[in-house]
Amino acid sequence: MTPEKPPAPSPPRPETVFDWVEHRDSLRRQNGLHRVLRPRAATEDVLDLAGNDYLGLSRHPAVTEAAAEAVRTWGAGSTGSRLVTGTTELHATLEEELAAWYGTEAALVFSSGYAANLALVTALTDESSLIVSDRNNHASLIDGCRLCRAEVRVVAHSDPEAVRAVLRESPRPAVVLTESVFSVDGDVAALDRLLTVCREHGSGLLVDDAHGLGVLGEGAGAFSAFGMGAPADAVATVTLSKALGAQGGAVLGPRRVVEHIAQTARPFVFDTALAPAAAAAALAGIRLLRGQSHLPARVRAVTRQLREELLDHGIGVGEPGAAVLGVPVGAPEAAVAWAGRCLERGVRVGCFRPPSVPDADSRLRLTARADLEDDEVRRVAHVIAETAPDFAALSGG
Amino acid sequence: MTPEKPPAPSPPRPETVFDWVEHRDSLRRQNGLHRVLRPRAATEDVLDLAGNDYLGLSRHPAVTEAAAEAVRTWGAGSTGSRLVTGTTELHATLEEELAAWYGTEAALVFSSGYAANLALVTALTDESSLIVSDRNNHASLIDGCRLCRAEVRVVAHSDPEAVRAVLRESPRPAVVLTESVFSVDGDVAALDRLLTVCREHGSGLLVDDAHGLGVLGEGAGAFSAFGMGAPADAVATVTLSKALGAQGGAVLGPRRVVEHIAQTARPFVFDTALAPAAAAAALAGIRLLRGQSHLPARVRAVTRQLREELLDHGIGVGEPGAAVLGVPVGAPEAAVAWAGRCLERGVRVGCFRPPSVPDADSRLRLTARADLEDDEVRRVAHVIAETAPDFAALSGG
Repeated sequence: MTPEKPPAPSPPRPETVFDWVEHRDSLRRQNGLHRVLRPRAATEDVLDLAGNDYLGLSRHPAVTEAAAEAVRTWGAGSTGSRLVTGTTELHATLEEELAAWYGTEAALVFSSGYAANLALVTALTDESSLIVSDRNNHASLIDGCRLCRAEVRVVAHSDPEAVRAVLRESPRPAVVLTESVFSVDGDVAALDRLLTVCREHGSGLLVDDAHGLGVLGEGAGAFSAFGMGAPADAVATVTLSKALGAQGGAVLGPRRVVEHIAQTARPFVFDTALAPAAAAAALAGIRLLRGQSHLPARVRAVTRQLREELLDHGIGVGEPGAAVLGVPVGAPEAAVAWAGRCLERGVRVGCFRPPSVPDADSRLRLTARADLEDDEVRRVAHVIAETAPDFAALSGG
Repeated sequence: MTPEKPPAPSPPRPETVFDWVEHRDSLRRQNGLHRVLRPRAATEDVLDLAGNDYLGLSRHPAVTEAAAEAVRTWGAGSTGSRLVTGTTELHATLEEELAAWYGTEAALVFSSGYAANLALVTALTDESSLIVSDRNNHASLIDGCRLCRAEVRVVAHSDPEAVRAVLRESPRPAVVLTESVFSVDGDVAALDRLLTVCREHGSGLLVDDAHGLGVLGEGAGAFSAFGMGAPADAVATVTLSKALGAQGGAVLGPRRVVEHIAQTARPFVFDTALAPAAAAAALAGIRLLRGQSHLPARVRAVTRQLREELLDHGIGVGEPGAAVLGVPVGAPEAAVAWAGRCLERGVRVGCFRPPSVPDADSRLRLTARADLEDDEVRRVAHVIAETAPDFAALSGG
């Protein structure tokens, strides 16, 4: 008699496989970190200070007409990756005019800024490289660091001396990674000092200029705003979806470097090209900005006015370098509630919680727009002030 | 007297920092792997078999008019990330109708299929997970594997038994990662057998359906084509940029899983939302396909006709499962030259070289379109045949 076989275990039921996501969901809700997708209507009676349409170009008639015309001329999609069928003459024109405006030899357009940043970091490093990365860098830059094979050293925020100390000790070829305008706090990196430090050590400087383009200086990007010319040892990325009002991203730099990214960056080679409508919209935005350089100055003036009005109301807010203002709150629940009260009164503000910001550092994020009138800015400040939480009570004081 | 200090080394010159890219460029050119971006015109006298516009929807008037109208209604850009200002009612409608058509509880739209795949893999695994990945999976899935923290086991192509062997040995929670239609060779995965294997071991099945949507079965995606219903233990990604003629990507699956991805996936949270024009175009495409189910059958008939014509001409080509045909060539230079001769005669074909395909396995890649006429297919086969290299001479035989 053979020994009795144990009964076969019953197979797991299909409906239990992803049960673990419910536990994570509970944890998020307990910690005030659950997010809600709130579909907005095409027209609403709301003053928006949450989006990144800094210059109001996404609804500018010249931009929307160019996009609509491109759909009719080129079709709704690009039909393939850039190296197969996705490069139209429209993409080529956009890249030429974008590079000429930005002041670099070449530009390469992506379907998103996120993809451009992944491409930048992965194509310009390998396992022999060192990346020196500002601790406040955007998630897309961090994901680029995770995806590449380089050694990554994270350094203190906006601290060229910390960068210098790392470069001095390292014999490896290095790139230094920073934003021009930091997306959450809105402060501006000392690109001139960083470039000096890079040059002492033969390192390259990689700059995410997503929130600088259209806002700093004359609007033509951080390199020209800092008087850096067309640096042979620096490469920038921008988005086409913020100040330019469209969608997509781009890498800008020396021709040979941009060409290298086009040949090797997987987020470029293996992604469908940007839709013609978005390329045309971005191109129209660039042409508008070449002729209307008052817009960058206007969005900065709106930002300064908003800060002053908020300070007058006793709301603490940092010194703005570009068009982003952060209002510290602390607990995520308090930030969500405050933003909700603002929206009830017709003012939409951004509400940033972990993991977008460090723990216990949740905040309102306000983005100025060039098309806000002075009295609208006053109204925004008034609404934010009248809906403010009682910080003394919050902190138990 | 203090000892004489050595002279300070001269600092590296900025223009030399990226010199290394020129060496890589030389190597690529020596190996026949240099790529050229060839901007195409809006109208050209070319039969296109290189793009992924399988159903010809990118230029369908209902699609382009919907896109143009959306630009006017919503603006050229979405103005922000999905969790801030980027979710419009149009995105919500697209997600509802896409999920209903595909047959899943929920859908989540991204700016690209590449981003959707990164999100899928990174959000549904962590350092305790095992990923079992088909060796022919697309670069975006591989990049998802590189970006996540899971253990990754690459298995033989289209081999459910190999998947079973890995799952059997592993005590870790696992997901199995595959394409439905493999993007380069065009063969179809045995999703039913893979799902069975997954269920024996309580594993999840993740399917990149980019080249299946609009092509397999009635066009409504791989789950319905395989009669899988709305599996509780499987999640799919699609692109909006191929059969739907627009731009973007989506994740489709059980509501709680899709919600988890929206809450946690960094390529979703930290990316600007898809432009309204692309969302509207994809929505129009879905509405067309719900009413015109002859299109998927037509593109498959075109594929079969093309294969038969090529075989009649003596051109070796594999059995198609969907709408992609691969014509093996071997050396990259020979593939490039062949594709060039086709284009001179008015037929654009894809030319795939490493790293898109394994070394010494370069090929022409032909994609059928539902809007090709029978005589156009004959012409394509004739041109490919009359421009074919002398394979006997190539192999030295």
